[in-house]
Amino acid sequence: MRTIKIFSSIIILSLLIASKPIIKNEIPISEETQQCLSCHTSIHPGIVSSWENSLHRKITPLKAKEKSKLERKVSFENLEPELGNVVVGCYECHSLNTDKHQEAFEHNGFKINVIVTPNDCAKCHPVETEQYSKNIMAFAHTNLVDNPVYTQLMKAVNNPHKFEKNKIIIGEGNKLTDYELCLYCHGSKIEVKGFKTRETDLGEMSFPILEGWPNQGVGRVNPDGSRGSCSACHTRHTFSIEVARKPYTCAECHKGPDVPAFKVYEVSKHGNIFSSDKHKYNFSDVPWKIGKDFEVPTCATCHISLVVNSDGEVIAERTHQMNDRLAWRLFGVPYSHPHPVNADLSKVKNKQGLPLIVELTGEPVSELVISKDEQQIRNSRMKKLCNQCHSSSWVDNHFVRLENTIKETNNITKEATKILSEFWQRGYAKGLPQNENIFDEEIERMWTSVWLYYSNSTRFASAMSGGGDYGVFAEGRYQLTETLYKMVDKLNQKKNVKK
Amino acid sequence: MRTIKIFSSIIILSLLIASKPIIKNEIPISEETQQCLSCHTSIHPGIVSSWENSLHRKITPLKAKEKSKLERKVSFENLEPELGNVVVGCYECHSLNTDKHQEAFEHNGFKINVIVTPNDCAKCHPVETEQYSKNIMAFAHTNLVDNPVYTQLMKAVNNPHKFEKNKIIIGEGNKLTDYELCLYCHGSKIEVKGFKTRETDLGEMSFPILEGWPNQGVGRVNPDGSRGSCSACHTRHTFSIEVARKPYTCAECHKGPDVPAFKVYEVSKHGNIFSSDKHKYNFSDVPWKIGKDFEVPTCATCHISLVVNSDGEVIAERTHQMNDRLAWRLFGVPYSHPHPVNADLSKVKNKQGLPLIVELTGEPVSELVISKDEQQIRNSRMKKLCNQCHSSSWVDNHFVRLENTIKETNNITKEATKILSEFWQRGYAKGLPQNENIFDEEIERMWTSVWLYYSNSTRFASAMSGGGDYGVFAEGRYQLTETLYKMVDKLNQKKNVKK
Amino acid sequence: MRTIKIFSSIIILSLLIASKPIIKNEIPISEETQQCLSCHTSIHPGIVSSWENSLHRKITPLKAKEKSKLERKVSFENLEPELGNVVVGCYECHSLNTDKHQEAFEHNGFKINVIVTPNDCAKCHPVETEQYSKNIMAFAHTNLVDNPVYTQLMKAVNNPHKFEKNKIIIGEGNKLTDYELCLYCHGSKIEVKGFKTRETDLGEMSFPILEGWPNQGVGRVNPDGSRGSCSACHTRHTFSIEVARKPYTCAECHKGPDVPAFKVYEVSKHGNIFSSDKHKYNFSDVPWKIGKDFEVPTCATCHISLVVNSDGEVIAERTHQMNDRLAWRLFGVPYSHPHPVNADLSKVKNKQGLPLIVELTGEPVSELVISKDEQQIRNSRMKKLCNQCHSSSWVDNHFVRLENTIKETNNITKEATKILSEFWQRGYAKGLPQNENIFDEEIERMWTSVWLYYSNSTRFASAMSGGGDYGVFAEGRYQLTETLYKMVDKLNQKKNVKK
Repeated sequence: MRTIKIFSSIIILSLLIASKPIIKNEIPISEETQQCLSCHTSIHPGIVSSWENSLHRKITPLKAKEKSKLERKVSFENLEPELGNVVVGCYECHSLNTDKHQEAFEHNGFKINVIVTPNDCAKCHPVETEQYSKNIMAFAHTNLVDNPVYTQLMKAVNNPHKFEKNKIIIGEGNKLTDYELCLYCHGSKIEVKGFKTRETDLGEMSFPILEGWPNQGVGRVNPDGSRGSCSACHTRHTFSIEVARKPYTCAECHKGPDVPAFKVYEVSKHGNIFSSDKHKYNFSDVPWKIGKDFEVPTCATCHISLVVNSDGEVIAERTHQMNDRLAWRLFGVPYSHPHPVNADLSKVKNKQGLPLIVELTGEPVSELVISKDEQQIRNSRMKKLCNQCHSSSWVDNHFVRLENTIKETNNITKEATKILSEFWQRGYAKGLPQNENIFDEEIERMWTSVWLYYSNSTRFASAMSGGGDYGVFAEGRYQLTETLYKMVDKLNQKKNVKK
Repeated sequence: MRTIKIFSSIIILSLLIASKPIIKNEIPISEETQQCLSCHTSIHPGIVSSWENSLHRKITPLKAKEKSKLERKVSFENLEPELGNVVVGCYECHSLNTDKHQEAFEHNGFKINVIVTPNDCAKCHPVETEQYSKNIMAFAHTNLVDNPVYTQLMKAVNNPHKFEKNKIIIGEGNKLTDYELCLYCHGSKIEVKGFKTRETDLGEMSFPILEGWPNQGVGRVNPDGSRGSCSACHTRHTFSIEVARKPYTCAECHKGPDVPAFKVYEVSKHGNIFSSDKHKYNFSDVPWKIGKDFEVPTCATCHISLVVNSDGEVIAERTHQMNDRLAWRLFGVPYSHPHPVNADLSKVKNKQGLPLIVELTGEPVSELVISKDEQQIRNSRMKKLCNQCHSSSWVDNHFVRLENTIKETNNITKEATKILSEFWQRGYAKGLPQNENIFDEEIERMWTSVWLYYSNSTRFASAMSGGGDYGVFAEGRYQLTETLYKMVDKLNQKKNVKK
Repeated sequence: MRTIKIFSSIIILSLLIASKPIIKNEIPISEETQQCLSCHTSIHPGIVSSWENSLHRKITPLKAKEKSKLERKVSFENLEPELGNVVVGCYECHSLNTDKHQEAFEHNGFKINVIVTPNDCAKCHPVETEQYSKNIMAFAHTNLVDNPVYTQLMKAVNNPHKFEKNKIIIGEGNKLTDYELCLYCHGSKIEVKGFKTRETDLGEMSFPILEGWPNQGVGRVNPDGSRGSCSACHTRHTFSIEVARKPYTCAECHKGPDVPAFKVYEVSKHGNIFSSDKHKYNFSDVPWKIGKDFEVPTCATCHISLVVNSDGEVIAERTHQMNDRLAWRLFGVPYSHPHPVNADLSKVKNKQGLPLIVELTGEPVSELVISKDEQQIRNSRMKKLCNQCHSSSWVDNHFVRLENTIKETNNITKEATKILSEFWQRGYAKGLPQNENIFDEEIERMWTSVWLYYSNSTRFASAMSGGGDYGVFAEGRYQLTETLYKMVDKLNQKKNVKK
């Protein structure tokens, strides 16, 4: 029945195809998109109804460009009229740059891409795409799979493990596991493995075979060579700014215990008021007005959004380079440090030759991280936001405390590293450099948890003023210090047995 | 004062009792229910106001039966007019099948049951009751307390523990503890321990003494012999379909870390959009329309609800046998396996004679689990839903990855079992079969956590596409592999000491 | 630009200053507050817009006093007309009792306090302030930093740790760390360290230098000598009763794992229905009407709010002494016990001379805790609420189970204490009294987790009927018993090595 309906849709469409773009509510939809819709409304009703609710459906790019500077969400200079004067429909996004898309395929007479990449979105949003590309997140795949330290961690977590002759042997990994685990957030590399023909409701059709698909990780390597996935935050096919501004989007990857940003936010004063009062806020208006649209910030407010005060003055410019207002990289490996100069961290090296941006003793590699001046600039961008609702002394003291927390947790990591080193030196564990993997023994995991879980949790609690449980008892300082006691107890136990 | 008010209510009622059912907004309430209400409106205002808001209050069963097939929620064939033509009030539910209810008691001239059971609900909802009875959940009590392996786990968790002569002695359990712990979700067995008379606002009255009450566990064994508690999900006394369809209901028992379904959902793309956009959805309409009523699924959408597409075509039939669309039992003990053929798992046996549906080496007992063909049928029921919003390759690849995750986590469980076996064989722990409890030593708990926590978490993350934290760092593969390292370290430590 | 705007505001204001209070929507704002607003509307738009939305902005105290007894939120007897006849604005709160405020400072011709304390709020809300002062929470700072046992825990968690000569040395703490951790919830002690002058948009100004600021902990010690921070729950500057009544406020400090009240609530039946239906509730009306305004309770309903039934009868009086309806202190150190008589626990002593309200063997120090009779009185206050929606047998059995859980978890703590004592006696760990810190060794932390995490979690699960995961698998009885097994395993390991 569906097949019949789809075929009759096509026939009706064919009659229309010669005519000009149909005006529906006076917002023109391209002929091509109408042809897409004629079938996909039945095949993928969920996708189509999401799109029907989107702003893409409700305004053309050239109309969007006419909005005042602060209200405008498109950032292109020029756009060809055939694209600019129709709504942003299926065809407008899925047919761009097909020459660069290895997965482009013939589909009912059109050349179509399965995946819409940041490079495609850049047609209308070039500034945001450019900003995003300077983000550590854009390199989330590369920084993980091309950095020898992190790939060791990946293997020790994801790969098959065998118990043989009293020890654990780590086997060869498989990509299917990686996709479900680390690469779920970091992004997969999507590769075209050929094309295959299969029977559909509309007869035989050919589709690309995609390795690494589906994936919406922030650092996805796309088949057009671009990095990232805008739909990681701007979920298809509503591309709702409301969803992107709410903290649940960030929570997909920043929940914890490694980066407990959302958990800390939830129990912070900001998070409490958000949860209690969000139904009274406006999450859609651009620019976003403090006091009028919202009372407390979400993740987006502090890190991304264009924010104005009640007088319409710009308090924070929109940025998709999320570190623009961040002086520190809280989530250090293994130490927290000033933000890196470059987002690509796959080729960094410290003095010891390890692919890390810090020494194992905690000092950052100075030429790889931003200067104190740049830190101050970024902090003052952030503070300008804080100051809309908090006094100067409140805000200044907050940042003094955060820097203290960074210093103190880094110190603890250093002590834990000393204990681990003693294990390595005494031969109680396989040490660097003879050890091919520094994450595959109990003591090494204790050390990893010190910085990856407990130091991070304590730092996020401090950074976001949610210090109650996540700073102390919920994988915070309590577990941080406890792990030191465990490591020492284990060291003494080894000594007692060995001697 | 309350007493006086209640008495005067009774007098007024007595005058009315001879007349026909009172018409209130033209929806008739039975005389009996009106008499209940005359007192309980004052005694239990919360219950009465919940019921006032319920659909039970707003339509009679025979009117409900007149609705179109897809809109209909009742499933009876015939209903006696005295029940069918009044709203579903106190008396209509609490007076059914009193001959079967051991706890039935005389109450102001009526015979009343304290507990309304699935067998009572079946009066109007027989199809749902029948489906539910084929559910593993219906046997949640029995499968736990009548299976010798699981009762060992219960004892090692719930019973008193004494430290005597360098070891832990597990004492006799007490039911009060069980009710608050395992049986809170699994359901208690409710037994009538007699009747007692006590003073109330309305004078002396007699009530049954119920062991195991209160409880709303899904596998509750009721005093009429039936199994289950509809109010586990359809919370009294609104019986709101909105509440049942929202994931918070499932979260009561499926939060984790053993079955972190809700936690994973929350950080999945589906969960993010649900949290952000739920205020725009319609959770009450039947049938439930993809795209119109909701954009992303909740637990109910995929596992229970009657779902139609924008053309009104049925995409999924309503089912209260939740495994209808489930090929695998993710939550295996100790391995994940194809879904069991029968929901009653209390009497299963593997080749070793253990009351498990899998061997300790991972293979399922083939005659006890569904076939590959049946798995495919169930998967295709589920996929039909996915395909409304996702392409075929997206959906197919999702299920390929899930099966890989099941295989990989089962493999890790097998390795952990090998290590545990070595402890048993070497006498470092009390092994099977001389050990009366395989959950009461540190190494045994490490093994248990491998499958019960970390493998399950990884599998749920994979099944529900929420792989970020719950697949890796939040009691996922990170802890899974770490536990193997711990077990091996402990093994080597025992060897070093013992020799 | 902002500076110019602010200056012109001041000039305009100067012209108005001689006149009487301006009538804005017929609700008079004092001249002083208008002068505050003239600058701060631009400087702190977030604060001002929050206040604009508050009830403080919408009614004068003397009008509020005219409300009926049950609707009234102010509790003063008399108020001077100049305060009572204007809205509660900036100046009305920030200028009170400046003689007592060490941080009071000259600011544009006014004497202003940075911090508004419970003593200031008492001007209009004396009954609530008085009740709150009898709360353990009011002593949260003092009970922590003035009790030698708890300060040991603080040091072992917060202070710097060094690894030297095979052991951990705990160094001197720093206040910045304490503020971000324990004192975030418990409250800091705010001290004035002088005054400093700095350049602002409005020229040079002088401000107090505050140690311990910002902080909104419940037991904050204020620079006027008072204890507590009303804004811990009544968040500035909306002071929204809706926010205070929603459980997210309590979750700021009661999330877990030490006090997992919010987590348990979330997965309880009450919490499920709250999450599903809260958009239908009225969280602002006073008194709060069961059935009409809400169907299920939040934290505030059971512990604080004035609650009436559908007849308008008072079911529970408003109280800010939260233990008014609490027979037990669930969160015991290290045992759960009847509620303390006095909220100040800093000077308590047990028979052993330890600053605890219980013996190490579990018995409470009888003269320091409330009597059985008082427990019954408090329980019956709570039960009256429960009985609005639940039968007597339901409610009574609930409390029987809770008392059983308290007994059982206390018993486990006792066994863990026995094991720890054996470590101390055998010299496997530094014991009391020669040990200056009983929280700085692995075995001591195991013991601490037994009562602080796992016993508490089990008790909260029982108390709030959310026993599913938090009673068993989510840091409940599973981990409770597992920790015993670990402690014994460690004991035997020590014995094997030492002999």
